[in-house]
Amino acid sequence: MNKIKTALISVSDKRNLQNLLSVLRKYDIKIISSGGTFREIKKLGFNCIEVSKFTEFPEILDGRVKTLHPKIHGGILSKRGNKKHSKEVRDNNLENIDLVIVNFYPFEKKIETSSNHNQILENIDIGGPTMVRAAAKNYQDVTVLTSSNQYYDLANQLKKNHGATSLEFRKKMSQSAFTETAYYDSLIANYFNEFTRNSFPQKKIIHSKLIEQLRYGENPHQKSSIYSFGNSLQLKQLNGKQLSYNNFNDIYAALTISKSLPINKGIVIVKHANPCGVSIINNKIKCYQSALACDPISAFGGIVSCNFKINTKLAWELNKIFFEVIIANGFEKKALKILKKKKNLRLIDASTFSFNEKFKINSFNNAILLQEEDQIKFKRNEFKIVSKIKPNNQQMKNLIFAFNICRYVKSNAIVLAHKESTVGIGSGQPSRVDSCQIAINKMKKFVNPLENIIAASDAFFPFVDGVEQLVQAGVKAIIQPSGSINDKKIIKYANDTGTILVFSKTRHFRH
Amino acid sequence: MNKIKTALISVSDKRNLQNLLSVLRKYDIKIISSGGTFREIKKLGFNCIEVSKFTEFPEILDGRVKTLHPKIHGGILSKRGNKKHSKEVRDNNLENIDLVIVNFYPFEKKIETSSNHNQILENIDIGGPTMVRAAAKNYQDVTVLTSSNQYYDLANQLKKNHGATSLEFRKKMSQSAFTETAYYDSLIANYFNEFTRNSFPQKKIIHSKLIEQLRYGENPHQKSSIYSFGNSLQLKQLNGKQLSYNNFNDIYAALTISKSLPINKGIVIVKHANPCGVSIINNKIKCYQSALACDPISAFGGIVSCNFKINTKLAWELNKIFFEVIIANGFEKKALKILKKKKNLRLIDASTFSFNEKFKINSFNNAILLQEEDQIKFKRNEFKIVSKIKPNNQQMKNLIFAFNICRYVKSNAIVLAHKESTVGIGSGQPSRVDSCQIAINKMKKFVNPLENIIAASDAFFPFVDGVEQLVQAGVKAIIQPSGSINDKKIIKYANDTGTILVFSKTRHFRH
Repeated sequence: MNKIKTALISVSDKRNLQNLLSVLRKYDIKIISSGGTFREIKKLGFNCIEVSKFTEFPEILDGRVKTLHPKIHGGILSKRGNKKHSKEVRDNNLENIDLVIVNFYPFEKKIETSSNHNQILENIDIGGPTMVRAAAKNYQDVTVLTSSNQYYDLANQLKKNHGATSLEFRKKMSQSAFTETAYYDSLIANYFNEFTRNSFPQKKIIHSKLIEQLRYGENPHQKSSIYSFGNSLQLKQLNGKQLSYNNFNDIYAALTISKSLPINKGIVIVKHANPCGVSIINNKIKCYQSALACDPISAFGGIVSCNFKINTKLAWELNKIFFEVIIANGFEKKALKILKKKKNLRLIDASTFSFNEKFKINSFNNAILLQEEDQIKFKRNEFKIVSKIKPNNQQMKNLIFAFNICRYVKSNAIVLAHKESTVGIGSGQPSRVDSCQIAINKMKKFVNPLENIIAASDAFFPFVDGVEQLVQAGVKAIIQPSGSINDKKIIKYANDTGTILVFSKTRHFRH
Repeated sequence: MNKIKTALISVSDKRNLQNLLSVLRKYDIKIISSGGTFREIKKLGFNCIEVSKFTEFPEILDGRVKTLHPKIHGGILSKRGNKKHSKEVRDNNLENIDLVIVNFYPFEKKIETSSNHNQILENIDIGGPTMVRAAAKNYQDVTVLTSSNQYYDLANQLKKNHGATSLEFRKKMSQSAFTETAYYDSLIANYFNEFTRNSFPQKKIIHSKLIEQLRYGENPHQKSSIYSFGNSLQLKQLNGKQLSYNNFNDIYAALTISKSLPINKGIVIVKHANPCGVSIINNKIKCYQSALACDPISAFGGIVSCNFKINTKLAWELNKIFFEVIIANGFEKKALKILKKKKNLRLIDASTFSFNEKFKINSFNNAILLQEEDQIKFKRNEFKIVSKIKPNNQQMKNLIFAFNICRYVKSNAIVLAHKESTVGIGSGQPSRVDSCQIAINKMKKFVNPLENIIAASDAFFPFVDGVEQLVQAGVKAIIQPSGSINDKKIIKYANDTGTILVFSKTRHFRH
């Protein structure tokens, strides 16, 4: 193990610098630095050689060129045990640099807080990543640190190894270093791609930050973690056990639907990533009761998402049944107290949650399927009424409500609705007739006989049979995309039976 | 627009170099280069200044330090319209570099072809990415090329702009450049992470290459593309229309199941990413007929995956029904000819396809859920027989077959099987009883009454009701994970009715 004699420090994040410097001084490590870091080190009362003095070349171009010099990079990149390298180091009056401590210009923070393109450009660090990459490549001889969180580990290493670091430690630091440079350039690449609206570049780099390691994935034998493109998930857990993979999967399914509903309105109950009851009735209690009534058996152990703030009355009501998770746009103080009585019940405040990502990523073995989210906003006048009988205002509103829910049900999807609530959901079937049957069965099982039921289908009916089933079960109005060779027969059947038929034209598969 | 006067060239990929040099000569562009590129340029008969002559500093450390010099980086990074910068360029005897053409040491190729860690380390390019990043940052004044595919565009630019390039072009090239550096460092970071077996690093960078832009995503209003972690999808399309998003989704669902079956055995029919019929009968025709019989209505317009080479006889049989895609481990020549009669039928040779990726990626808004694939291999002695009646050899084989299929059916999943074929599949239900009912209904609808039906469930039965339904429908043996508080009741019910009951202990949700 080689003792560390010389360190180069250049940090944007100046936290813990004093501690670090004290440790380095203890082991008589010479420090080279420049710019703001140099000034800070001097201010803290430590010895330091300025880079320009070390390289005998001035800092130029407003700091754009400081460390891009062979005296720096020769010092970092020379192989210590290699005779040729050692000779070249001597011949060219170089000096080995054993420790590189660098973090980069805060590009990520800059793009979050500024829209000034030139200022953002200035925050693309060139010298920093070069030193880090050089040191990381030469980790067999050089230690590289890229975060102030690593100072403590370095101190331990130096203590344990009497002023040196172990190969294993250096390799681990090198791994972190390349992760940092890759992450940094991914940020820049994505910034440029957004800038030029290039959604599908030849090479796609997706960068994310670890939020937490989960207990396991969909099943206990699968390891899993959750990452974020941002700094947080915008979900605040207020109570209960750690969220599981399946919880997250369900939470996102629930929130996707909730956030598609009118502002501050509606309850969605989700089980296994499929909605099993949705309502947008104004009265919160009635809204919940209606959503629950759609399939109270499936709702057991499910996830409830309230697109509003939960009040005391609703909290009491919710507490009557076992749910895994309750999500809301906030909780009234007393309501939270009531719900917290169940120690394990996961409570999620999603009031700061918003949908920003336009794209959905799905991997399969060595492939990634990337697609835009299905984010079309429905407009009433874009739907085509094709039956003789026209829907009234209330019916049209219900049709749009049901069709919107339909797009979030796994295909093939049939949603039956009545008075701003679902009353039967058929999902996940390879055949549309089967989805119709499932929706009808659920309605018959759980909901009292109703007038004025409406139905929505995520894709066209290939034959009349599904429509027949629905009408025979009491459905009075149907919305579906159209596009089948049997469309005319279906229109005829609707007219023959006095059924309202609306064509949406847009299909909404979700597999 | 500034004329390009000086170019720096350093390329590992030397294709099209002659053409490029001819273009540069036409516009009197001075060339700086080093190492292998310098020698190649001289060999091709063009003028070129060596980097070490330009910087007045020798190339040292076996080429590790060549271009990391302020004369290079000052020349790239100076802002041309900035008086202070211009003065510093003059004072320090620098010379502006207007064009940077660099591609990197072939790290990706090296990790594909070598396992020598030190050789791989040597292929981490330090100088190249630094020049590219500097030029890309300063795109307002400098043009950067990172691929030989861009030479033609440069030639057009120079022609159109009389020896200059447009700002728009330079920005586009800069975007490509950062994509390249991000991709390059992602490769290195992942190499180091694999090296240290770090599956869930603090920052995760996923890199992939565009395979093709798809016509659209799950629905026509969603844009979509398919990317690969490797260089290809390992799928060879031999006939038919372009594959769609939903085709790919179904193909991967089908292949996941096919590749889990015994080698060169079995047919899987998939519709909407769910299997609607699977058989592993040895005889290829019978195998197909059995898979189809499970749900011939859903199979219509679905995807067939044969885990073997398709022969003439099977080709004739397959041609009787409309499928979107047929996948096989190869096609006999005559069989291919028969199938190709249907011009639109997509035929996929998956004989080189193999599952390598251990992880599955799923994004939701600003989050990524990352989990290991469910890849447990089932071993007979790991299952626990809990009923008084024990399964015979054939029954146990069928139980394992059904349980394996079960894990690929969207949850909640119930699979009924008979003689190495599925005879009823219930999928995508929030309630397990409903999945049982769907599976039973399908069996009753499509398959003749059978003896010795067995059933598999992807997760435990929460109550006895589902088991009751199955037994009443004629099921003689059931496999399920166990873990319910009602397990004892279920065992008692099994014993009371003379049903075989096996506990797998592993759960297999797939939502």
